[in-house]
Amino acid sequence: MRYYSLISNDGDSRLIVENRQSIALDLTSLDPDLTDLSDLLLAASLSGMSVDEITDLILETGDADRFDLGETMDRSRDGDGYYRLDRPFEPPEVWAAGVTYKTSEMERQRESETPDVYASVFTADRPEVFLKATPDRCVGPFDAVGIRGDSDWSVPEPELAFVLHRGEIVGYTIGNDMSSRSIEGQNPLYLPQAKLFDRCCSIGPCFVTAEDLDPTNLDISCSIVREGQEVWSDQTSTSLMARTCEELADWLQRHNLVPDLTTVLTGTAIVPPPEFTLREGDVVTITIEGIGSLENEVIEV
Amino acid sequence: MRYYSLISNDGDSRLIVENRQSIALDLTSLDPDLTDLSDLLLAASLSGMSVDEITDLILETGDADRFDLGETMDRSRDGDGYYRLDRPFEPPEVWAAGVTYKTSEMERQRESETPDVYASVFTADRPEVFLKATPDRCVGPFDAVGIRGDSDWSVPEPELAFVLHRGEIVGYTIGNDMSSRSIEGQNPLYLPQAKLFDRCCSIGPCFVTAEDLDPTNLDISCSIVREGQEVWSDQTSTSLMARTCEELADWLQRHNLVPDLTTVLTGTAIVPPPEFTLREGDVVTITIEGIGSLENEVIEV
Amino acid sequence: MRYYSLISNDGDSRLIVENRQSIALDLTSLDPDLTDLSDLLLAASLSGMSVDEITDLILETGDADRFDLGETMDRSRDGDGYYRLDRPFEPPEVWAAGVTYKTSEMERQRESETPDVYASVFTADRPEVFLKATPDRCVGPFDAVGIRGDSDWSVPEPELAFVLHRGEIVGYTIGNDMSSRSIEGQNPLYLPQAKLFDRCCSIGPCFVTAEDLDPTNLDISCSIVREGQEVWSDQTSTSLMARTCEELADWLQRHNLVPDLTTVLTGTAIVPPPEFTLREGDVVTITIEGIGSLENEVIEV
Amino acid sequence: MRYYSLISNDGDSRLIVENRQSIALDLTSLDPDLTDLSDLLLAASLSGMSVDEITDLILETGDADRFDLGETMDRSRDGDGYYRLDRPFEPPEVWAAGVTYKTSEMERQRESETPDVYASVFTADRPEVFLKATPDRCVGPFDAVGIRGDSDWSVPEPELAFVLHRGEIVGYTIGNDMSSRSIEGQNPLYLPQAKLFDRCCSIGPCFVTAEDLDPTNLDISCSIVREGQEVWSDQTSTSLMARTCEELADWLQRHNLVPDLTTVLTGTAIVPPPEFTLREGDVVTITIEGIGSLENEVIEV
Repeated sequence: MRYYSLISNDGDSRLIVENRQSIALDLTSLDPDLTDLSDLLLAASLSGMSVDEITDLILETGDADRFDLGETMDRSRDGDGYYRLDRPFEPPEVWAAGVTYKTSEMERQRESETPDVYASVFTADRPEVFLKATPDRCVGPFDAVGIRGDSDWSVPEPELAFVLHRGEIVGYTIGNDMSSRSIEGQNPLYLPQAKLFDRCCSIGPCFVTAEDLDPTNLDISCSIVREGQEVWSDQTSTSLMARTCEELADWLQRHNLVPDLTTVLTGTAIVPPPEFTLREGDVVTITIEGIGSLENEVIEV
Repeated sequence: MRYYSLISNDGDSRLIVENRQSIALDLTSLDPDLTDLSDLLLAASLSGMSVDEITDLILETGDADRFDLGETMDRSRDGDGYYRLDRPFEPPEVWAAGVTYKTSEMERQRESETPDVYASVFTADRPEVFLKATPDRCVGPFDAVGIRGDSDWSVPEPELAFVLHRGEIVGYTIGNDMSSRSIEGQNPLYLPQAKLFDRCCSIGPCFVTAEDLDPTNLDISCSIVREGQEVWSDQTSTSLMARTCEELADWLQRHNLVPDLTTVLTGTAIVPPPEFTLREGDVVTITIEGIGSLENEVIEV
Repeated sequence: MRYYSLISNDGDSRLIVENRQSIALDLTSLDPDLTDLSDLLLAASLSGMSVDEITDLILETGDADRFDLGETMDRSRDGDGYYRLDRPFEPPEVWAAGVTYKTSEMERQRESETPDVYASVFTADRPEVFLKATPDRCVGPFDAVGIRGDSDWSVPEPELAFVLHRGEIVGYTIGNDMSSRSIEGQNPLYLPQAKLFDRCCSIGPCFVTAEDLDPTNLDISCSIVREGQEVWSDQTSTSLMARTCEELADWLQRHNLVPDLTTVLTGTAIVPPPEFTLREGDVVTITIEGIGSLENEVIEV
Repeated sequence: MRYYSLISNDGDSRLIVENRQSIALDLTSLDPDLTDLSDLLLAASLSGMSVDEITDLILETGDADRFDLGETMDRSRDGDGYYRLDRPFEPPEVWAAGVTYKTSEMERQRESETPDVYASVFTADRPEVFLKATPDRCVGPFDAVGIRGDSDWSVPEPELAFVLHRGEIVGYTIGNDMSSRSIEGQNPLYLPQAKLFDRCCSIGPCFVTAEDLDPTNLDISCSIVREGQEVWSDQTSTSLMARTCEELADWLQRHNLVPDLTTVLTGTAIVPPPEFTLREGDVVTITIEGIGSLENEVIEV
């Protein structure tokens, strides 16, 4: 099932589940103290049950209030309404992998003066993984994502993201790995500056449990709208990933403890062409089959 | 003046200042609520006074207890005693710069298959800066620093570190940028894995205020002792740095807000030779003129 | 000067100062990290300066944005607008004193079956002090205050409140000590239940520094409006208090450490008559000379 | 089963369970992130399982390290050893009930100048409940409990305590309700000062799950040792309680939300005689059948 987090103008949170019949139910209406997905993940981990099984038990305890997700999304986009969509959970660390799609590898060769660096990592045992964002730099649905003022070529990278708890993949969300290709292209040693800056990442709109999603063959599409017109769009499939999520999770956690709810973006195959760069006011929407759509406006930071 | 943080077996903290006569005085004995350097930095920032001026005012309010720093260090090393040295403050983020010394640049050429990557960053306007450690991965004096189990060539990197508050450099400490040169050497894209892992960083033993230290010409030495014998040592000077601390602070904070007490390691000129790699049980001591010595034992993580 | 805290729909805080010319200036516009009064109090305590002196220094660093307090209050009342008034600071503990006004003592005799209990405390050395509220039970301006569903006689108690920092009185605010006189009247041992319950306390609208307010002769008035009509009002003066704030602060802190920002309500002389009890929807406004007005609507909890 | 919390000199926590064969097993050795009883309570609440069932599942996942509780207690008492007993959980609020035992009621009549106050509460529907301690004023096993320097007659009150989670009683511990009978005896309005001060409460040594303990007929004994000699001891039984734990939990939570892990001391029937008052250095030990012994030394605060 899919889990959404709402936050009100007064700072109150609500945990919403969208069940298999696509009905959104307010778990917080049944248990006022249940406002955070991490509580469900902890209970699942300790009880040996799945998150969705625990949710089913909670839903049996009463009549949960129904929630109109579509209306909440519209209001989140417009900035009115008492509740708006929040990140589905607070990720203590966001990591990302690079060069995980063959097409990506080709793209990168064009951009970089050091082509061998990218080609060799694609075929190497060890993947490229890097710390993408801290919690303060990672926004949620309909929040503004950032482009660096000193970047000539700024792009979104639409990516499937998995979530770790007690070292295991417990679910998925969408991640937008905002990047400066001009800075990264100058020198691979500038990767952290090209990747980690104010508002460099967004995740959402929801968390889908691992038991409800097979990540190996999902359509991913991305669209950029400028002044009401779509100026770029493309699509790919996670079936083109050259590495599995489990493989990335394993390498990340070698000699490196990551906290519960660490989120890992798995790389991208689609990026706008060299002649395209994001501008303030652009709206980036990433859609992944089985998860939903993550929409963010762009601002310069 | 120099500021030390102590922590007791019961979890209580004390803030100690070593004055210009090298007498260590317990500020917490004068104000039981004053246990954290960040309080002094905040008060200095808001009042327009310097940290040392505020400390002088506090010292005038009574007879502070004297503290035997040497004994506390001995007991911290031995793991007995009620108080032990802690990190002088908790850094919310630790960043590091690379290729800031000419000799370092040469060294890196030897290690890497992509020499141009390092050479070009040395002469470029933009420095190499990267997120080195999260608070949980950064230890203090006499704690264990880590070497990765999958690294063939692990080294300490002894570095001057500066501390930011409200965007300004407010003081200095010593940083040990533990690194896997074998992993970094395979591919520059592996830099985050070579640099950021369990116990990958240490800072300490104290914080020296910016008004009390000119960072431009300080001797730095490093020594590694194995089974009671020094197996490597070297020294350099911050006068060989090709960039200033202000320059690094400026580049780091472009389009990238960092929280108060963010600590930045400024790069190194001295590293053990290729035939040397750290082992469990080695003791690394880094000494910087005007600051002191930072000592850590090595464990495999 | 007077200090206000604002909170936005997105959870961001701003610290506003109303200077001696009654102009409200946004301190956060000059220092984005300065959003909490406690930072000013800490800086004042450590630097030996007054809070207002530090504020003057900050105001000299630039042109602070002006703020329309009246408009923000109107919008806080109506529940619209991006910013609303918050508690001026978060009090870790709220204490209250009782039987501090002679008229109050007389009133209590009428209500209680144990008159000697109240009479004797009025003349005793030791005052009555009790833990009035935890942070979660203490609301701010325009928030809802609570009446217990099992109380037949619920009243506001309008009180001057002082604020402690490092054991000293550093400033004042208004406190509403919501009380069930029917429960307290049954038995003095029920005092905690008559005083400490959901939404039992409000403080605000601002914090006035101790250097700017002489607490010994301030007019206090209270008004209750029901369905647009004033149904009760009364007034008194702090000059009728039988104890000083310093005396209460001293007794409270004997053998009892209280945390910084602990707030102490000093008792009341005006309460509605026995035939009056609060109802849901009533609006209680307390005004204290030199501080302002604290307005709260009543709900049953 | 019984749950203990240990804390090390380095601030690390471990969660220990004593199973039905009185073997102490280290749950943290099976799940390094499981260090806090509150995680088990949350998982039990959400999964509909009992805490002990979840513990059984965790114990089946591997061979938990055995722990020598007796040795840890000896070392906690002596203040040596790397691990010591901590409070079994951190109670966000500690409440207490009074006049719940018939003998207590008689005792109180002797002490007080207002006998009717105590007599009437004993027979009234509404019990006496009051906020006994904040987390910072509540210590754990072998920590020092406090006596007020301005109290002529200071006593321990040995009490069964229950623990609330999501509004339900989930388990029990021992509570020591340190009290000044001289201050309380002067005036019932001084009760908060007689009850709530530095180190006024201790809880421990463990948490016993509600499914494992019937609270209605437990022997309670208390012993005070001065300079190696027992100077007072007495015993009673919870069967003499005039109210049930459920009744107290119900009254406490009327119109008063309390946070998870709120702990409620249920009153006492045994107190030292008027001619006895605690002194610094006395050791108070309270033993309750099925829970264990809670031992604390006395200091003046």
